[in-house]
Amino acid sequence: MKIHVLQKEVIDFAKGLLNEMIAEKLDVENPSFDPSNPICIADLGCSVGPNTFYAVNNIIEAIELKYKSNPQTPSFHVFFNDHTTNDFNTLFKTLPTNRKYFAAGVAGSFHRRLFPNSTLHFVHCSAALHWLSEVPKELKDRNSLAWNKGSVLHTSPVKEVREAYSAQFRKDMEEFLSGRAQELVRGGLMVLIVQGLPDGVLLSETTVGMGFCVLASCLDDMAKTGVVSAEKVDSFNLPFYHPSSKELRALIETNGYFHVERIEKLSTPWRHETPDLQLVGMHLRAVIGGLIEEHFGDEILDDLFQRHIKKLGESAFIYDEKYRKEANYFVFLKRKGVVSAEKVDSFNLPFYHPSSKELRALIETNGYFHVERIEKLSTPWRHETPDLQLVGMHLRAVIGGLIEEHFGDEILDDLFQRHIKKLGESAFIYDEKYRKEANYFVFLKRKVA
Amino acid sequence: MKIHVLQKEVIDFAKGLLNEMIAEKLDVENPSFDPSNPICIADLGCSVGPNTFYAVNNIIEAIELKYKSNPQTPSFHVFFNDHTTNDFNTLFKTLPTNRKYFAAGVAGSFHRRLFPNSTLHFVHCSAALHWLSEVPKELKDRNSLAWNKGSVLHTSPVKEVREAYSAQFRKDMEEFLSGRAQELVRGGLMVLIVQGLPDGVLLSETTVGMGFCVLASCLDDMAKTGVVSAEKVDSFNLPFYHPSSKELRALIETNGYFHVERIEKLSTPWRHETPDLQLVGMHLRAVIGGLIEEHFGDEILDDLFQRHIKKLGESAFIYDEKYRKEANYFVFLKRKGVVSAEKVDSFNLPFYHPSSKELRALIETNGYFHVERIEKLSTPWRHETPDLQLVGMHLRAVIGGLIEEHFGDEILDDLFQRHIKKLGESAFIYDEKYRKEANYFVFLKRKVA
Repeated sequence: MKIHVLQKEVIDFAKGLLNEMIAEKLDVENPSFDPSNPICIADLGCSVGPNTFYAVNNIIEAIELKYKSNPQTPSFHVFFNDHTTNDFNTLFKTLPTNRKYFAAGVAGSFHRRLFPNSTLHFVHCSAALHWLSEVPKELKDRNSLAWNKGSVLHTSPVKEVREAYSAQFRKDMEEFLSGRAQELVRGGLMVLIVQGLPDGVLLSETTVGMGFCVLASCLDDMAKTGVVSAEKVDSFNLPFYHPSSKELRALIETNGYFHVERIEKLSTPWRHETPDLQLVGMHLRAVIGGLIEEHFGDEILDDLFQRHIKKLGESAFIYDEKYRKEANYFVFLKRKGVVSAEKVDSFNLPFYHPSSKELRALIETNGYFHVERIEKLSTPWRHETPDLQLVGMHLRAVIGGLIEEHFGDEILDDLFQRHIKKLGESAFIYDEKYRKEANYFVFLKRKVA
Repeated sequence: MKIHVLQKEVIDFAKGLLNEMIAEKLDVENPSFDPSNPICIADLGCSVGPNTFYAVNNIIEAIELKYKSNPQTPSFHVFFNDHTTNDFNTLFKTLPTNRKYFAAGVAGSFHRRLFPNSTLHFVHCSAALHWLSEVPKELKDRNSLAWNKGSVLHTSPVKEVREAYSAQFRKDMEEFLSGRAQELVRGGLMVLIVQGLPDGVLLSETTVGMGFCVLASCLDDMAKTGVVSAEKVDSFNLPFYHPSSKELRALIETNGYFHVERIEKLSTPWRHETPDLQLVGMHLRAVIGGLIEEHFGDEILDDLFQRHIKKLGESAFIYDEKYRKEANYFVFLKRKGVVSAEKVDSFNLPFYHPSSKELRALIETNGYFHVERIEKLSTPWRHETPDLQLVGMHLRAVIGGLIEEHFGDEILDDLFQRHIKKLGESAFIYDEKYRKEANYFVFLKRKVA
């Protein structure tokens, strides 16, 4: 079993959800998804393959299914992104020869901008967002409360350490989401597969967290025997963060550019199996070997990972089912419609609410009718608090068409959800003292010529 | 002086022409060049840099200048293309940090499709088109008239060899042009810098050709001393072709997708200098070392290129000014407008040419007028052959607006040039026997009620 197989299983678990969500949420009527233009897909943090090719293939098949009844099916342009240090030569050489898309490689961090505005239709990012853009600086500062002596991650019991990690993740996610929001078209889709934790669970209570504690203790042992300096060990921290689904949702909602269409924990059937420790060690070395080498030099690599596998064997209890709480979350997002300030400035409703005096004057100026009666209708419901959901639905029924005509239909859901929410926050406007609007009963009789 | 400096000088010579042509031929009013979308540029056969970064920068500066007076300037998406064997890792690591564009790498041969339809605005390809997709097969066939024994290129006196090379180049250029035609937007621009020969000059009469003959004789020497097999030497040929500007123009015109806006020989001031033979040898090794290794194995490389430099020293006469005829051609092309069959089928002119009988009947049915006179006007010019240029200009003045409204303005020049050309080929339609159309003088008098 090769290392990449672990990740492939996660992609497999996500496939069903992906198909379902694309079928439901991709809007082939959206002008940005016109099949005469190519559909642009980016896989961020793609590594060298073959998992990225597999994931991209799943996405393309699901999108093609959506266009099945269209007379035209789109072509696909796929952008494979990872850090500049990724081996793009290998990626390009192993691109599937029978692929149904045009391929390109994009080197750079997804915490920065990677593509021009409004050029992507679908973003995929699997098992990559737990990588922070950097280790929070306070962790390396001996004078900080967040100094992470003895730990390599946010497994520390020190609250300040966990908060520093969480703050860094918040900042990185905000950059990631805002960058992608600029790059995706209106109504564009994004699927994130995020290594995280159930709500309320600390990393230190999980198998993964305890595995990193074992690694930290190996480094500690090596410091005690003088193989590495204690200072080097104390200042070493991994740039990983494992958020809860609640944290993820809150960050996405605060960011504001995306609708959360779905957040779901992926099933993990391997949870009951005892892992092959040799494989676990090799996998970890593949993932963090570079970071170890950068901080400690490459001469400690073999020693460290041999110690690690040995200690994992001695700590087999950490693979107990009760600790295997770490989870992969499937997060499906849709880019909200974008509204330009210009569009807003030029939007006006064709409504006017006259006074009874105005009404009477207009009829009299016109001259053809006698005003037999103008009377304000009684409004007994005036004292009740209205059902805001109903108010919103009513307004949407009345002006939805005008909004659509001026702004496009992508903004409808978002706008009226915001409206109902803001009405709730502005409940004072339903105060009786402001309910002055009236319905007038006007009865006219045609004058005799 | 590094090897890439030789190519940089060519790009420098082209820079002025590039600026001039972009200023003149890029149409910022073309909807495909709307600055609210990114301008997509591809450098085909880019190698690892830095020349590609330099060339791309020249193009972007020239395009930005064109948008200077626009309220909005576009963003740029640059695609760096070369064979899958190119070192994209180095390319990505050395991308200029202060670049003004989003970058992507695209691996694959430019003799095949690389991008989705209508996604590129500007294609650049410098010092790469002389590479054929393969050595023509006949050259390696001992029973063919084009068997290229003793030569490594189309320096051979055998006509069949030269023709086989020329046929391969024709095929490759056709694929290159047709592929790019699909990938470029209507009105998209392409600049090619092609290593070629002046019209009527054979490769064997030039310094470059003679240099390859020296290389061939080194291989021959090595075969004589048994270092390599004679058979291997006889079957070795380089996949290069050096076209004349006349050939280039004819291939582009036959292909039909592009307007040739300019073909110009680039100045070569270094023509009078004696080259550094060590450098010439290193350059050649960088370019063809891989091909030699693939055919003969890597053990002959040092020996061969040492012999080559030594023999070049003994053949210094080949650097005489009179032989330095090889040239770099600057070729600037513009993608013609594309017309869909559907657009053609739905296009009709709102004209009708009645007979005098029809006219009279209509007036009488109407009833308000007396027909005092209907008379055919004399047409003394009927016997003359018209000036077709004038006929075309006249028609364009009359229906240009209708064409533009239905098809867009990008096709106007192309259509009316084709029209004048076809009229010339159909001169028989101006035969007196067909000139039956007439102008009628109609004189009416209002009836008394």
